[in-house]
Amino acid sequence: MFSPKTHIERRDQLKKELKTGVILLLGNDPSPVNYPANAYPFRQDSTFLYYIGIDQPELAVILDLDQDREILFGNEAGLDDIIWTGSKPLLQDQARVVGLHEIIPLDRLPEYLSDLSALKRPILYLPPYRPENTLKIHKLLNIPAPMIPQAASVALIQAVVKQRNIKSDEELAELDKAVTLTGRMHLEAMRIAKPGLRESDIAAALHHIALANGPGFSFMITTTHGEILHNTDYSHVLQEGELLLVDAGTECYSHYSGDITRTFPVGRKYLPKQKEIYEIVLNAHQTVVAGLKPGVRYLDLHLLAAHTIAEGLKALNIMQGNIEEAVRQGAHALFFPHGLGHMLGLDVHDMEDLGEDFVGYNDELRRNTQFGLKSLRLARELEPGFAITVEPGIYFIPELIKKWKAEKLFKNFINYEKAEAYLDVRGIRIEDNYAVTPTGSRLLGKPVPKQIAEIEALRG
Amino acid sequence: MFSPKTHIERRDQLKKELKTGVILLLGNDPSPVNYPANAYPFRQDSTFLYYIGIDQPELAVILDLDQDREILFGNEAGLDDIIWTGSKPLLQDQARVVGLHEIIPLDRLPEYLSDLSALKRPILYLPPYRPENTLKIHKLLNIPAPMIPQAASVALIQAVVKQRNIKSDEELAELDKAVTLTGRMHLEAMRIAKPGLRESDIAAALHHIALANGPGFSFMITTTHGEILHNTDYSHVLQEGELLLVDAGTECYSHYSGDITRTFPVGRKYLPKQKEIYEIVLNAHQTVVAGLKPGVRYLDLHLLAAHTIAEGLKALNIMQGNIEEAVRQGAHALFFPHGLGHMLGLDVHDMEDLGEDFVGYNDELRRNTQFGLKSLRLARELEPGFAITVEPGIYFIPELIKKWKAEKLFKNFINYEKAEAYLDVRGIRIEDNYAVTPTGSRLLGKPVPKQIAEIEALRG
Repeated sequence: MFSPKTHIERRDQLKKELKTGVILLLGNDPSPVNYPANAYPFRQDSTFLYYIGIDQPELAVILDLDQDREILFGNEAGLDDIIWTGSKPLLQDQARVVGLHEIIPLDRLPEYLSDLSALKRPILYLPPYRPENTLKIHKLLNIPAPMIPQAASVALIQAVVKQRNIKSDEELAELDKAVTLTGRMHLEAMRIAKPGLRESDIAAALHHIALANGPGFSFMITTTHGEILHNTDYSHVLQEGELLLVDAGTECYSHYSGDITRTFPVGRKYLPKQKEIYEIVLNAHQTVVAGLKPGVRYLDLHLLAAHTIAEGLKALNIMQGNIEEAVRQGAHALFFPHGLGHMLGLDVHDMEDLGEDFVGYNDELRRNTQFGLKSLRLARELEPGFAITVEPGIYFIPELIKKWKAEKLFKNFINYEKAEAYLDVRGIRIEDNYAVTPTGSRLLGKPVPKQIAEIEALRG
Repeated sequence: MFSPKTHIERRDQLKKELKTGVILLLGNDPSPVNYPANAYPFRQDSTFLYYIGIDQPELAVILDLDQDREILFGNEAGLDDIIWTGSKPLLQDQARVVGLHEIIPLDRLPEYLSDLSALKRPILYLPPYRPENTLKIHKLLNIPAPMIPQAASVALIQAVVKQRNIKSDEELAELDKAVTLTGRMHLEAMRIAKPGLRESDIAAALHHIALANGPGFSFMITTTHGEILHNTDYSHVLQEGELLLVDAGTECYSHYSGDITRTFPVGRKYLPKQKEIYEIVLNAHQTVVAGLKPGVRYLDLHLLAAHTIAEGLKALNIMQGNIEEAVRQGAHALFFPHGLGHMLGLDVHDMEDLGEDFVGYNDELRRNTQFGLKSLRLARELEPGFAITVEPGIYFIPELIKKWKAEKLFKNFINYEKAEAYLDVRGIRIEDNYAVTPTGSRLLGKPVPKQIAEIEALRG
């Protein structure tokens, strides 16, 4: 799916950016479920996939910028491996395809690194998110475990983010595949959902599509309680009159990911209050998409969405007063407590392991701590090649409404009695994925219906 | 599903067995896929489930036998957790149900343990298989990471194994549920498999059943290359004339697991050579089951299976000579290179994390290093309450046949030319789960057809 030169060029660009040093890239290992031989499906580290492209465990790479060496540390499979897990392409053949010609057995990595340390060569690594890689860095570089995150190389993080933030045409083509497959999951949910099914029946059917058509890494929220933002409980039984919120995505074979949300009626039609709120969310979504283009700060689009939502809620008498001021103070966040969206790529939240603030913010633009804004993952100016999600939502969260009401918070801006009358709408979110183009944006993947009339038509 | 006293009684039995010391039980944490917020489905540690029964992350328990204290370390959810993941039962309520009344915030565990260490109280822990728990022990007990496995308490391991090896009636009822659900997966595979589908279509359909009817922890081998023992590649397209080997299982809601294997034709009928080999494997399976009873060493049943297989292969002229002697020397292991079965419980390979030799062997019976026997996970004398798998198989592994033939290994016992004529049969395994009763054994779960005539009837 990638040209033979892709990974070589990516490494060359990284080396040009960093100029000097020794970069240590660690691959992932299998994660045990309840004992080592029973592991979760193996997922390679995304940065390792990006620069090295070899999708198997127990690998590490050293890029020595000063000595111009690229070394892959890993082992070829033995006869026992072949008996138990079948014969796979040779590591050296896989390495050659991505331009790596020096391979050293993995157990020689500690010695190699200690030689480098003896020469006082600084070794640059990325902050590990897998505990096995924290342990590896602890043992290999002799850094106390609690100090490992802050001893990671900021220069390396920034160079990787700079590069991975801009998707090439090859990458965008992979994202199109992933988002289209993700869209199939959503069409299936709309096809099968009906009163009496459990949320887990929907979740199982969506994962079925992911596993039959890709490597099977999927995530999904399939809930009639959309107001619980990251609900992964699937035990409710769908009831006529409820909305089903499905926030689900999956990877295509190259591990690029899609991330779509739809909220549709368990029955055939949206109820009147559901429709009122849905139209506001859809309007916020479309208003943002119309504004997507290079040079615009995503923070400003987030505020635009907040504004659109707050104006819509004012029209329903749920919010009141000066909306400009309400949004400035963060009153709308009672109903829209999360961020407008995030980067998308080899990770659903792209590069979140490297630190959200490195990906979505920069030196000029720091994260705001206001409730709502503090959850905004992406704020920086958009650039051509960014792949992002747009996912405004409106939620009626009983615990939060109760707390704010008791504290009389923003009572000039919020009509709590009216808000309580919408508690049964629970939560609505509409999410699609877009690539920023030189002149604006384009939808990634095949469109999935999001107009009320289209969805009601699909729901028969 | 368990009586309110179950977990209290289990802890009491453990404490009675060990008499003195401080036991540290660590729960599991979420395992990140590619960044912390994108985690694999959470699976609690099985020993933690067994003694504590609370199925959520970020918990630890101290059982202080000398001071007669049981302390749960963990935190109640805050408002942010409720907004993002919904309100869950209070930790203190869950703890009360399982008889734990002292709860301390998790961040006070390091201090608590360092006080105990200052008093020279030895702290007993189980060998960690999750890297996050290796890191926790490293930080909490100040043990260098490489020494953590051997510093684990053998007395604690042995006490836990002694207890968990014997399943109570309550546990057997859970195993029945898990195996019955596992059986549904196999019936579905037999219902849908047909030429042109990919193995991944079958895998997806099986996981679908697991996820819609349980917590969704499933494992599966769905392969037309049954000779690759732990094949997790699902990319082949099913062809008329092939056999599909499905070795799959899943957990019921209490996390007990089933583990069944069936091997059936992609078309409607077994071909003649497939039938010949299948009947030998089935005969070995049934011969072993007839011999299952307390007091019999599982090692001897493994050898009985080896014998039955070797005699069967001799009748086909694939093996030859004195079969008694062939099995003694291990010639049959060319075709049956793995063990007859293993313990089953909260883990598919029950307690494999604590060390297979502690579970399946004992001081009188050490593991044999002969090829084939070295892979036998369970050898000890059977006792009432054991739950086990019986899973003989015959495989024609091209790489192994080629190697042994070139080395002229066991040429008195193996007719290599004849064996090569069966290469296209690839691999056949038949596995069911049994509980050892006071007088013999009983099948766990609802029966799944394994006779050729029954399976061909199902395949229409």
